[in-house]
Order: sequence, then structure tokens, then C-alpha cells
Amino acid sequence: MKTGRLEAFSDGVIAIIITVMVLNMKAPIGATFSALKVVLPNFISYIISFIYVGIYWNNHHHLFQAIEHVNGKVLWLNLILLFCLSLLPFSTSWMGDNHFQSIPVLLYGINLLLCAISFILLAKSAAKQEGEDSVIGKALKSKNKEKISLLLYVFAIAIATYFPVISLISYTIVAIIWLIPDTRIERQLHTPKK
Amino acid sequence: MKTGRLEAFSDGVIAIIITVMVLNMKAPIGATFSALKVVLPNFISYIISFIYVGIYWNNHHHLFQAIEHVNGKVLWLNLILLFCLSLLPFSTSWMGDNHFQSIPVLLYGINLLLCAISFILLAKSAAKQEGEDSVIGKALKSKNKEKISLLLYVFAIAIATYFPVISLISYTIVAIIWLIPDTRIERQLHTPKK
Amino acid sequence: MKTGRLEAFSDGVIAIIITVMVLNMKAPIGATFSALKVVLPNFISYIISFIYVGIYWNNHHHLFQAIEHVNGKVLWLNLILLFCLSLLPFSTSWMGDNHFQSIPVLLYGINLLLCAISFILLAKSAAKQEGEDSVIGKALKSKNKEKISLLLYVFAIAIATYFPVISLISYTIVAIIWLIPDTRIERQLHTPKK
Amino acid sequence: MKTGRLEAFSDGVIAIIITVMVLNMKAPIGATFSALKVVLPNFISYIISFIYVGIYWNNHHHLFQAIEHVNGKVLWLNLILLFCLSLLPFSTSWMGDNHFQSIPVLLYGINLLLCAISFILLAKSAAKQEGEDSVIGKALKSKNKEKISLLLYVFAIAIATYFPVISLISYTIVAIIWLIPDTRIERQLHTPKK
Repeated sequence: MKTGRLEAFSDGVIAIIITVMVLNMKAPIGATFSALKVVLPNFISYIISFIYVGIYWNNHHHLFQAIEHVNGKVLWLNLILLFCLSLLPFSTSWMGDNHFQSIPVLLYGINLLLCAISFILLAKSAAKQEGEDSVIGKALKSKNKEKISLLLYVFAIAIATYFPVISLISYTIVAIIWLIPDTRIERQLHTPKK
Repeated sequence: MKTGRLEAFSDGVIAIIITVMVLNMKAPIGATFSALKVVLPNFISYIISFIYVGIYWNNHHHLFQAIEHVNGKVLWLNLILLFCLSLLPFSTSWMGDNHFQSIPVLLYGINLLLCAISFILLAKSAAKQEGEDSVIGKALKSKNKEKISLLLYVFAIAIATYFPVISLISYTIVAIIWLIPDTRIERQLHTPKK
Repeated sequence: MKTGRLEAFSDGVIAIIITVMVLNMKAPIGATFSALKVVLPNFISYIISFIYVGIYWNNHHHLFQAIEHVNGKVLWLNLILLFCLSLLPFSTSWMGDNHFQSIPVLLYGINLLLCAISFILLAKSAAKQEGEDSVIGKALKSKNKEKISLLLYVFAIAIATYFPVISLISYTIVAIIWLIPDTRIERQLHTPKK
Repeated sequence: MKTGRLEAFSDGVIAIIITVMVLNMKAPIGATFSALKVVLPNFISYIISFIYVGIYWNNHHHLFQAIEHVNGKVLWLNLILLFCLSLLPFSTSWMGDNHFQSIPVLLYGINLLLCAISFILLAKSAAKQEGEDSVIGKALKSKNKEKISLLLYVFAIAIATYFPVISLISYTIVAIIWLIPDTRIERQLHTPKK
């Protein structure tokens, strides 16, 4: 099976996820700046989630550039990733509605962790299918970013009930780490074959 | 008419259906785990529907890989399938909101049954057009999966008013049966021609 | 400019319109059949609108199959058509919410009329650009369907305040007329050139 | 990286933005024309925003026609543009809900200004990558439209707290200026190379 339609479908779902999140940011009642302040936590949550979904789209894009064929397993791991991402509008609006209280911040972290794990599994499975010597096989050998992210997520989830603000900062740090696009695959694509 | 634009449109509609279902899972009031428990039935409903829509996307994908041209009839049968799928967000949220009570579980089953029937009609019509000796014509000869699914749906609908839990289990069994992608078409595609 | 991206964008908008309409059909409170009966007018409205949007997608598809290039005017006429179609979720849910009372039925008719006019203008403009002797130029010469539709719309709008049911029947008749896909363009495409 | 998937993703997001705006226009309670009058400000806001999003889609389309490759920076500037556009459903419905009062009109102007700035940065960055002598490099040399728009936005924002109606008129003037598609790129594409 070719990757074309899988990419198009994933793009569609991701595009919708990124956009429906803003629907959960309801226009406040009252036409004043103080009325607007009520949606500020929702707005901050939206920005964080937008960046995350943007990063996933970006990395998804990079991943499937290096893959030529997908089997049934990759297809379902991709659907699991989309499922985890599709929960973000829910956890984002719960976190925003409750002004970054402990439990919603914790749940948001779990959601991010699930997205990260499913992406790692997807990338691994895709790399395995293409072979260890393939572009993607080489590109994904070092996994420092992934390890740091997972550690930070677990740390943020563990600490959320005590210091939700530190959890939020951790999520932001992970986002910043990933804002630099995954150049490993690009580098491998441009490395001359020996 | 080529299948390209029909596939793209179907992908779009399916991508939106899969994503808007999560919109019906409203963020609960209150920032506690017990507040979260209220949306648990909605979450379970969402998972089941997500898997079903994923299966339909997957099989739709397989089906149109084997088809090269579509006529007006296939086009409208495809729209009927999309219509049935588009009702899933409604029946899913009704079932979740009412914590799996009899009538909503029954309606959900009818919705799944309608989706199944319209997919079977679509596949049949597409196979007919391509000819009995075509890839898809051969691939769809044995229909055990379809028969078992339809029987399970009818059984689940009949029993829903008495034991909605058993109906739910039946829906889940059908989903598991279909989680294994429809390899019949793939197999036919790779069978050397005599 | 090529038609590819315009078709993709239109498909996206139409796919979303067709799907968000179902979002306006809120899951009723209560898990009984009588609770479900409350959404019946919304369901009927949804079916009619789904068929209409399906027809427009279908005819839009046929139209742009025959067109190779688009200029700025066609691009904006296409956006006006999408704008008119995007109002359908609003007028559909207003008509359903109010159980087919006069004014909402009248507004729904105006919406359908606007869609029809903008489609006719789009087709005309596209045909003009391609030239009278082009495939589309020839295909759109006889306009019986268009004329009957416009007449029925105007009649339905005029009568809506007195007999909204007759208006509804008129809308359904127009839909049935158009359910038969626009074979004129297909016929022209397959006519051997002299 | 090729522009194909970036265009498809942007189209998806823009298509959803343009369509979800209409979801914020809730069907009014009551089946009379006076009930309909309540949504009139929302309708006017929707028209303005629809035209703006249409213009951005149009210009985005023109821009990426002239670009062949995108780097990480262009990719993220594109996401920032999509982020700014995704806020339009929020600011549009706030402006409509509050019948064009000062602060919402001011916020709407800030939103439009942010969209304009991010588009200019995107176009600049894309032009830089392609080189000053490239099609897009030449096409974007004169920037009269951009300058007038920015000035009008700043003026409209400054005056919004006193005369929101004049701000609204300013937004409309900018829209009209841009309704004429960006022929500079098209002209350059058709200029014979010396």
C-alpha cells in the first residue's frame, strides 16, 4: 500500500484537530477586556496544543517522506496516534476551563505522553519494515530527544498534583525541544550513499 | 470518472466524522477525577466508534484500490455509506450520554447495521462494474465476515432492550473481527495472473 | 491556474459542510423513542440537505472535470457558491428546530435558490472561458433542469408562508430531478470529435 | 521538502476555518423574521471573515505556486499564519455577539493585523529562499497593497474605541483592495525570461 492516501487522511484529521480546538474557546459574554480575560487560560492552552499538533504534523510529514510502503501494522499504529491526538481538544479545554488546576494538568500530561509513545511506536514499526539500513532506520538510531521528552512528561505528571505550574513549564520545554524539526531524517536523505 | 476525487472526498468526510465525535465529549465541570468519571461512558463510546470508523476507512481504502473507474451508481452508494457513517457522532453521543441504556444501544446497533449494509451494497456494485473476473470480483466472493457481522448486529439489536451490555459486547466482537484488514483484496492483487 | 487545488479546497469545504450539519442534530435528553422523536424534524432536514450538498458536490465534480484552467472570476464565483452552501447548516437546523414552520422553510428555499443561482453563474463563467465550442460550452447549452429548478424554488418560496409542506415537497422534487447526475457533460466528453 | 503536502494541509485548515465560523452562527429561537434579526450582526461578521479567509486562501495559493521548495522556517511561518487565521472564528463570533461594540471590533482588527503580518513574513521568507531574481522575488518587490493595508488596520484599531463603525468600514476597504487577486506573481510567471 502506498503512503499517499494515509498521509492525506492523517493530514485531514490533524487539520481538523488543530482547528476544532479553537471552537472550544467560546466567545465570552460581555464586550470588555475583563470579559476577555476569562478565556485567557483557554487561549494559553490552545497555543500550547497548537504548537504540539504542529510539531506532530511536521514530524509525521518527515517520517512518511522516508517511508515508501505501509503495511497493516503501520496503518493501525497511525490510527492510534491520530486517536491520541484527537483527545487533545478535550484535555486542552478541560485544562483551560479549570485555569490550570492539578488534575486537568495531569490529564493533559498523560495525553501528551500517550501521543509521544504512539508516535515512537509508529516510527519504530515503520523503520523496522523499511529495514535497518534504510534511510529511516539510520535516522532513528539515536533517540535522545525522545528519551528526554518521555522523562520530562513522566516528571511533569508526577509533580502535577503538587506544582501544576512546573508541569506546564515542562510541557513547554518539551515543545521547544521539538520545535527544531527532526533533521535526522533530512540529513540521512541527503547523505551520499557509500 | 476516476476514483481519485471520490477517495479524497470520502477521506475528508471520514476524517471529519472521526474528529467531530470527540467534540461531543464535553469537558466536565469540576477539576477532579470524579468529575472526569462522568464522561467515561462517552469516552468508551468514542473508542468503539473510532475503531469502527477506522475500519471503514481502511476497508474503503482497500476497496477503491481495486477499482479504477466509478459510475453514477457507485458514486451515490458511496454517498449513502458516508451518510450512514455521518450519523455515528449522533448515535455515539446519545449512547454515551445515557450510560449505555437499552434504546440508545439499540439505535447505535441499527446505525452500525445500516453502515454495514451500505458498504456491502457499495462493494457489490463496484465489483459488478469491474466484472466477475476482476481483482475485486474474485476478492469478494467469500463473504463469511460480512455474514457473521450482520448476524451479530441483528442479534445485538434484538437483545438490546433486555441486555444492552451483551449488545455492546457483540459490537466489540464485530469490531475485532474486522480489525484484521481485508486481506482478500490484497491477496488477489498479488496473485499472479494465469 | 490549474483546477487541482481549487477542486481540493472545494471538496474540503463541502465535506465539512455535509458533516457539521449532523453536529446541529443534538443528542436528545432521555433514552426513549419518544425523546428521539423530538429530533425527527432535524433528521428529515438533515437528509434533504445531505442530498442537496451531495448533488452539488457531484455536479461540481462534473463541471471541473470539463474545465482545465480557472481565472480569477471563476475562483471567486466558486467561493460565492461555497459561501451559499456554507449557510445550509444554519438554515437546515433553523428549519428542523422549528418543525418546518413557514418562515424557516421560506429561508431554506432562499438559501437553495442562492446556491442554484451561484452554481449557474459559475458554470456559465467557466463555459465562457473555455469557449462555446469547448466540451463544457456544448454541454451546457440546454438548460431545462436549471429552469425547472429555479421555477420550483420561486414557487416554493412564494407559497411557504401559506403551505410550508408544499414548499418542502417542491424542494424534494428538485432534489429528485438532480439526483440523476448531469450526464450532459459526460456525454460531450465521450462524443467523438468531428 | 516539496510544497505539495504543505499546501494540502493549509487548504484543509483554511477550509475548516471558513466552515466552522458558520457553526458559531446559532439558529435563533423562534420562527419569525424578527428572531432572525438577532443573528444579523453575526451574519455580517461572517461575511467579512469569509471574504478575508477567501483572500488569504487565494493569495496563499498564488504564493506557493511560485515556490518550489520549503525549508523549516517557511513551514513554521506557515503554521503561524494558520494559527492567526484560526483565531478568526473566535474574534468573529465575539464581534457579532456584541453587535459591533468597541472592544470586540478592536480585537478583530488586531486579529486581522496579525494575519497580515504573518502572511508578509511568510512571503518574505519564501522569496528570500528562492532568491531575489526568482519569480517570487521580483513579484514581491513593490508592496503598496501591504503598506496601505497595515496602515488601515492600525488606523482602525486606534479609532475602534471611539468609532467602531469607521473601523469596520476600514476592514471592508482592505478586503476590497485585496479582492483583486495578487496579479503580480501571475504577471511574473508569464513574463518571458530575458
